[in-house]
Amino acid sequence: MPLTQDQRAQIAEARQGVKMTLRAVSEGMESHLYNAHEVLDHGFVRVIDYMGNDDAIVQAARVSYGAGTKHVQNDEGLIRYLMRHWHSTPFEMCEVKLHVKLPVFVARQWIRHRTANVNEYSARYSILDREFYIPEPDQLAAQSVVNNQGRGEALQGAEAARVLEMLKSDAGRAFDNYESMLNQEGQQGLARELARMNLPMNTYTQWYWKIDLHNLFHFLRLRADAHAQYEIRVYADAIAACVRDWVPHAFAAFEDYRMGGVTLSGKALAVIKRKLAGEVVTQETSGMSKGEWREFEEALK
Amino acid sequence: MPLTQDQRAQIAEARQGVKMTLRAVSEGMESHLYNAHEVLDHGFVRVIDYMGNDDAIVQAARVSYGAGTKHVQNDEGLIRYLMRHWHSTPFEMCEVKLHVKLPVFVARQWIRHRTANVNEYSARYSILDREFYIPEPDQLAAQSVVNNQGRGEALQGAEAARVLEMLKSDAGRAFDNYESMLNQEGQQGLARELARMNLPMNTYTQWYWKIDLHNLFHFLRLRADAHAQYEIRVYADAIAACVRDWVPHAFAAFEDYRMGGVTLSGKALAVIKRKLAGEVVTQETSGMSKGEWREFEEALK
Amino acid sequence: MPLTQDQRAQIAEARQGVKMTLRAVSEGMESHLYNAHEVLDHGFVRVIDYMGNDDAIVQAARVSYGAGTKHVQNDEGLIRYLMRHWHSTPFEMCEVKLHVKLPVFVARQWIRHRTANVNEYSARYSILDREFYIPEPDQLAAQSVVNNQGRGEALQGAEAARVLEMLKSDAGRAFDNYESMLNQEGQQGLARELARMNLPMNTYTQWYWKIDLHNLFHFLRLRADAHAQYEIRVYADAIAACVRDWVPHAFAAFEDYRMGGVTLSGKALAVIKRKLAGEVVTQETSGMSKGEWREFEEALK
Amino acid sequence: MPLTQDQRAQIAEARQGVKMTLRAVSEGMESHLYNAHEVLDHGFVRVIDYMGNDDAIVQAARVSYGAGTKHVQNDEGLIRYLMRHWHSTPFEMCEVKLHVKLPVFVARQWIRHRTANVNEYSARYSILDREFYIPEPDQLAAQSVVNNQGRGEALQGAEAARVLEMLKSDAGRAFDNYESMLNQEGQQGLARELARMNLPMNTYTQWYWKIDLHNLFHFLRLRADAHAQYEIRVYADAIAACVRDWVPHAFAAFEDYRMGGVTLSGKALAVIKRKLAGEVVTQETSGMSKGEWREFEEALK
Repeated sequence: MPLTQDQRAQIAEARQGVKMTLRAVSEGMESHLYNAHEVLDHGFVRVIDYMGNDDAIVQAARVSYGAGTKHVQNDEGLIRYLMRHWHSTPFEMCEVKLHVKLPVFVARQWIRHRTANVNEYSARYSILDREFYIPEPDQLAAQSVVNNQGRGEALQGAEAARVLEMLKSDAGRAFDNYESMLNQEGQQGLARELARMNLPMNTYTQWYWKIDLHNLFHFLRLRADAHAQYEIRVYADAIAACVRDWVPHAFAAFEDYRMGGVTLSGKALAVIKRKLAGEVVTQETSGMSKGEWREFEEALK
Repeated sequence: MPLTQDQRAQIAEARQGVKMTLRAVSEGMESHLYNAHEVLDHGFVRVIDYMGNDDAIVQAARVSYGAGTKHVQNDEGLIRYLMRHWHSTPFEMCEVKLHVKLPVFVARQWIRHRTANVNEYSARYSILDREFYIPEPDQLAAQSVVNNQGRGEALQGAEAARVLEMLKSDAGRAFDNYESMLNQEGQQGLARELARMNLPMNTYTQWYWKIDLHNLFHFLRLRADAHAQYEIRVYADAIAACVRDWVPHAFAAFEDYRMGGVTLSGKALAVIKRKLAGEVVTQETSGMSKGEWREFEEALK
Repeated sequence: MPLTQDQRAQIAEARQGVKMTLRAVSEGMESHLYNAHEVLDHGFVRVIDYMGNDDAIVQAARVSYGAGTKHVQNDEGLIRYLMRHWHSTPFEMCEVKLHVKLPVFVARQWIRHRTANVNEYSARYSILDREFYIPEPDQLAAQSVVNNQGRGEALQGAEAARVLEMLKSDAGRAFDNYESMLNQEGQQGLARELARMNLPMNTYTQWYWKIDLHNLFHFLRLRADAHAQYEIRVYADAIAACVRDWVPHAFAAFEDYRMGGVTLSGKALAVIKRKLAGEVVTQETSGMSKGEWREFEEALK
Repeated sequence: MPLTQDQRAQIAEARQGVKMTLRAVSEGMESHLYNAHEVLDHGFVRVIDYMGNDDAIVQAARVSYGAGTKHVQNDEGLIRYLMRHWHSTPFEMCEVKLHVKLPVFVARQWIRHRTANVNEYSARYSILDREFYIPEPDQLAAQSVVNNQGRGEALQGAEAARVLEMLKSDAGRAFDNYESMLNQEGQQGLARELARMNLPMNTYTQWYWKIDLHNLFHFLRLRADAHAQYEIRVYADAIAACVRDWVPHAFAAFEDYRMGGVTLSGKALAVIKRKLAGEVVTQETSGMSKGEWREFEEALK
């Protein structure tokens, strides 16, 4: 239950406040505004504001290309053309602002995308809530044996139970002690900026995060990818579902060219040409290393 | 006459298109949307879109500071506090998109502000219009004798007439030859991407420019300043007039702390303390260089 | 003891490897290269590389201003002029790369400075060491009673002992369980990317951090400030000590104009003028709020 | 002759100044330092400084991946892995500073790459030299008939002669009048910041430009590409030649994965799979538009 009664009431109220505007509007995105999309056990993603829509992308592109583009293509075709040719600036003309509640270890990965604006809840200033991410049993996964930064099968039986117990009890005790250190009854009480260091990295934090559509697509390409850690991928998926309704043409082009596409090296391209010409090519004759060849075969499966 | 009949009709139509939205709205900014504020002889600034308002700044700040801020201050006081203490991230939560028509030499100075998104008209792709900036007589200024990058008095009489004649005839001839080189009747016609190099830097270009409020304030502080070149300052002034209506509390704080404020060095601060204690301080006893002292006295005048 | 024997040997070896270069060199910075400046109980700051020196700042400024600056000023005066007038681009021409070991809660504050390049140790990929920040007794401070994000006096006696015990035992137990969850003997072993979430935020991480001098000065102004949290300020101080030796003129100007300087609002400037003219001004007649007035009086003390 | 006698003497002197350093050195890059690579008729590219080398990229990656990577791969393989998987941060750990002299219309295209530091010669402050870009006859190309932003064949005979004459005489007259307007003998002399607007966009300017290797690769991918305008491509080629000597492994990976590679959409990938399975696929049965199909066939040729 990531949202309190209070928060639900605030959202309901905000969604009553219809106003008039002359700005570009995305009907699809209006339906998401303020609503919380629940993610993990206590997290959420909410759209707080947005700027622009598919038309705004086209309009910006037509400023650059002038009268010349008018007869060429319909809007959808132009958006696909821009995406295919890596024209990023028209996509930068759209912007979105999200409210996200997420575990700290996810926040640390997320913040590596630097081209965004962030206002995070300050545990130096305020006291955190007793909320921790505890994985569902099917996500309590073993270390992958083939990939240093991956997961294998879900843990079973007694081991799973032991791990869950450790996560819960360590988080609970850390929070008890956090509160106890802060307590000012009968003692001075430790400074908040110090006490927070006792909390584990599955503690929930929250922030406002604002980013343009081009950089958001870059975030989604990396974080909605099958190789991304599950705990950030579910946030990326929730955001992607909103973007699909916000800018449907741009999102479709993104899915085709980025999420569903593949980048081939010069060596890989040469192998495809040889194969299409009927030649049998093996890793040994490909010029690729074993790792590259394995990924190449994977892409063509 | 910077706007064509067509453009005026398009603006009138856009301003009819009232829509419903759940987003934060700034009534003051709605009145500016799409309208062209004329600048120089053929330029303009138009607000195409915006995100956020004074409330959005406060809301973002309260995310960071949590419940702790609720009782402390009213919104205006909080905004002033944020500005005074250089808390930039809440101001980054507002964004604006402008359509600007401006001479190339102004665009070259403007683009040095890198934290913004730009879509500029492409003279590689399309043909430019016959429009050049020609200064008004009172802006046809002599080189300053005290400041390498400044202006003195307006030129007078025959010299002024000569300069105006040169600017007009050189621009006119350059554009005639631009058209003549591009012409494909009875000849091949030079590539647009090459022909454009013949045009002077007072040729008008245009772009969409999108920036967050924190970085826009930084732009305005430098470009609406009395030391900025007149031809960019008039654009900054036109933008500032829109920002004042968009986020009145934030703009008032900006005016007080940035535009009307002053930064003193440690040496300057020490001199003020000595003066307030009744001491007579001269440049020689101030520890400042002559240049610093002159600027210091200027600031206290 | 933040450095292992191995690390000390590596540093000693790296400092043997003198090479020839035609590039700009800073003798002061060469003496810092690779050496670890110890910070907190297990952290350090090491200079890994740098680009430019005071001369490089001057050289870049002279590219912009051309022949015009040659006779005007000596290098030190020019650097002071650039700093006083907020000319940031010449300072951006210097760059530094640091290796920093720091607690996670400090890293989270640090990373909010986005205009930098970062490579952080990946706890998704590798296993963390058993190292936590435990404050020295004189830094185990109570919550400030006047400032939500500040510290008061050091805790005393039994309370201090209790807090230290909690921090140590919670961190120790969390790490024991982290190892236990990862363990693959007789069980599958939890994925590293999950197990890391059990660790507290005083766990040490490390990164390479690269930034230009202009943005580094901005970092230092905020983080070497008396209002910054002690645990990040000691890193800022260690870095500042290196910068002082790297670019002595630029650092002196930074100290005078930024660290030792003060920014006054238009209202505050008006009050100073009135005071210098002999008027007695109080908060009530100043036009400032109580908070502003208190800070203003503080600045003039 | 882009370099004056004075400049040649300065370069010769700078190249005498061998110093000792403990920093990472690239022998290949040392040979380029300060030397001017001539570009176009009056332009050049000079390496002024650099930070890092291939080893520095590997070292930064190993900080992130910890002990886990040590046994996996040799340095070259690791760099190829990083490039293939879009790990950009290790490449950001290298930095280069260039001195470039270039025509204004090229500078305007170049500056659209915002993630760089720039100090440009100020025509507000100083007086420009009488130097303009005039294309060689084989680069005096007609407008492309298939591509709005492209070139066709070189102009021939009388048309070529006419164009050259226009470019030369317009530039010459504009500069004569620029000097005449600035002249302070017997008149006041127009302000520099105004007079500069009379000069055409083939006037040469110069700047210091500093950028990290990741962003430089992005610049090179777009500007060393066959579709880039010739006048910026020659600069990209000159820079690429230096980068090849600076970081040979990284450059080889860049050439294979970026310059020589290709990005396929999901649709295009599906067509390749069908073709490899023996199916005959046409544009009509591909799901691609005509434009996409044409580009797809081009890529496989």
